[in-house]
Amino acid sequence: MTEPSILQAVATATRLREGPEGVAAILRAVYRAGSLRLQDAAREARLPMPVASAIRRELEKAGLLERKQGLSLSPEGRDFVERDLGLGSKIDLACPTCAGHGIVIPDKFRPLVERLAAIVAQAPSVDVTLDQAPCTPDTAMRRALLMLQNGALEGRRVLLLGDDDSVSLAIGLLGQAQGGRDLTRGVTVVDADERRLAFLRHSAEQGGIALQTVLHDLRQPLPEALKRGFDVFETDPPYTLDGARLFLTRGCEALAAGGQCLFSFAQWPAPQMLQLQQVFCDLGLAVQTMRPGFNHYAGATVLGNVGQLIELIAVNPSGAELPTWDGPLYTAQVNPRLRAYQCAQCGAEIVLGRDGAPDTVEALKAKGCASCGGTVFRRQSQKP
Amino acid sequence: MTEPSILQAVATATRLREGPEGVAAILRAVYRAGSLRLQDAAREARLPMPVASAIRRELEKAGLLERKQGLSLSPEGRDFVERDLGLGSKIDLACPTCAGHGIVIPDKFRPLVERLAAIVAQAPSVDVTLDQAPCTPDTAMRRALLMLQNGALEGRRVLLLGDDDSVSLAIGLLGQAQGGRDLTRGVTVVDADERRLAFLRHSAEQGGIALQTVLHDLRQPLPEALKRGFDVFETDPPYTLDGARLFLTRGCEALAAGGQCLFSFAQWPAPQMLQLQQVFCDLGLAVQTMRPGFNHYAGATVLGNVGQLIELIAVNPSGAELPTWDGPLYTAQVNPRLRAYQCAQCGAEIVLGRDGAPDTVEALKAKGCASCGGTVFRRQSQKP
Repeated sequence: MTEPSILQAVATATRLREGPEGVAAILRAVYRAGSLRLQDAAREARLPMPVASAIRRELEKAGLLERKQGLSLSPEGRDFVERDLGLGSKIDLACPTCAGHGIVIPDKFRPLVERLAAIVAQAPSVDVTLDQAPCTPDTAMRRALLMLQNGALEGRRVLLLGDDDSVSLAIGLLGQAQGGRDLTRGVTVVDADERRLAFLRHSAEQGGIALQTVLHDLRQPLPEALKRGFDVFETDPPYTLDGARLFLTRGCEALAAGGQCLFSFAQWPAPQMLQLQQVFCDLGLAVQTMRPGFNHYAGATVLGNVGQLIELIAVNPSGAELPTWDGPLYTAQVNPRLRAYQCAQCGAEIVLGRDGAPDTVEALKAKGCASCGGTVFRRQSQKP
Repeated sequence: MTEPSILQAVATATRLREGPEGVAAILRAVYRAGSLRLQDAAREARLPMPVASAIRRELEKAGLLERKQGLSLSPEGRDFVERDLGLGSKIDLACPTCAGHGIVIPDKFRPLVERLAAIVAQAPSVDVTLDQAPCTPDTAMRRALLMLQNGALEGRRVLLLGDDDSVSLAIGLLGQAQGGRDLTRGVTVVDADERRLAFLRHSAEQGGIALQTVLHDLRQPLPEALKRGFDVFETDPPYTLDGARLFLTRGCEALAAGGQCLFSFAQWPAPQMLQLQQVFCDLGLAVQTMRPGFNHYAGATVLGNVGQLIELIAVNPSGAELPTWDGPLYTAQVNPRLRAYQCAQCGAEIVLGRDGAPDTVEALKAKGCASCGGTVFRRQSQKP
């Protein structure tokens, strides 16, 4: 890269896995927008919020960004970006109609999104220990439409591996709008959370939607009855490499012969994406499209609220088998360093899930500080 | 898959690498469109023209398609598609503004496409033995715009490995329209065809575009002067696995540290795509986006006139090195069975590149039939 050493210095100071390129991506986003919110800068640069925030601090220290409400370039920053990085274009070439996602929700289906939003407003609270982080109703409907467009719904036996995104309900509503019929040859939801399954069953019943649910922890091999019984699976698994491998393997166990997969995932740095793509190859899954920014999430601010959607074709599904998995799986297990809090009252430091502390901040608040009983906690920055 | 055995039977009769899914894709395209040209059905189903044509014949034999000018379903075909395949939707959900490509050409840049079209109309004739098959000026400009959008042009040292697509000229014209400046820190074109390089140099000089050319056969390692000297490379290599691996390896040799790659390629069946993706992994190239149908070609009818564009990030570029390559590389070398002709006068059968026959049909016409001297030849269907 030709970028000067300041980018490298910021990348080093923030331990940025994307390297100087990640810093340049933030500067490019700010330069093109004039000024923008941290959240939007993170999204544009495909970086997690805490990472974008750390980069912002370093760029402020270096005098390239100004301390204002949003992010904006200082005069020195503008000079640097134009002269040293060679930027000059502020034009946005992403499609204005679909924001580059390729799939649009036709006007006539807009009411479906509103109906879905009203339904999911009644959903049970999110269990973050299971990496639950529901996508927006808009995203759930776009996933269903993408499946319809690409032949993954009509006449297909569809399996959803985890469905805190309520894609099963989006598919059902879409079928009702498309001639009042079940588009598929059956939709089955497998989930480890009975509260979530009960909500989906109740909502489906209320809305006249056909739907099967199976309570099952995917760390165990698929029940025999589900093996080789589906044409398509859809999943938005835990955002760890082992989580991806496990859910994809179980999905492959479920496919009859060949078949399709819709796989939603975090937008990882290139070195980790390479590891994920080796998992695809190992499992005999060929990538057909990759759509960055396709998925929007209401809650997952840490991920910049967006994620990618990958369409895969199973070339050798029968080859994929995995015995019971007993290793760490969810983000909280793999990256516990992300989840440290300080008691606002006594200053005690609590790392979730360690030394007897609860696994979630919600549980911590309910239990109170072990030292003083306080119930207000401040999130600490990342621990190494 | 739940599809009945007729799909399997057609897939077997046409030796279809996509299997029954490929036959279903043709039927879905015809059903959604009502009736359409073979060429458009091939494009929709992402199948090469000869393959789509063979499927059509089998579906006609089976009574599902009718013999008409375009492809259309017989009443039996419509029954089959609706009842046995479960299709019912005729709605097209691909973005109407960008056709799902994600990048649009703004109105103000339309004249650039016309200027580029006028320039490439003067280009030398295509050398099919080098797998030359220029993309449309529209596609060349969209590639340049995608590079601008994704930070692969401004302030970057850009290498084009082969440029029968005239992307170098599109980049130059775009820079002129964007403030009359060279967007990049230099564009270098490496090509094995001196006619093509002379055309690019001449056009660049006429248009006031900055451009370096290097005559070099990529079967040889990159010249030392080009190694580790670029931030970005762009290529549309020979459509063979070895061609892809070779061009990607040379591109990685050229990258300074990290860096980006725009890789255009045929839309292969999933089993072959899986092999290609293993090549990406082996070379340390992480896929960032895959855009089916992004590239349009004027001449490559056999590929349905469209191809995919893949954006890659080089994670470990220094690891990639390849000595001189002396194996088969171009399509004509790897798949000579595709290129059989019959003399219209005496009926003699000629396989290009074998038994002393020329490598191209153009050369064959110039030389005349070895048996009778005739100069009219009919293309034969594929040989095993």
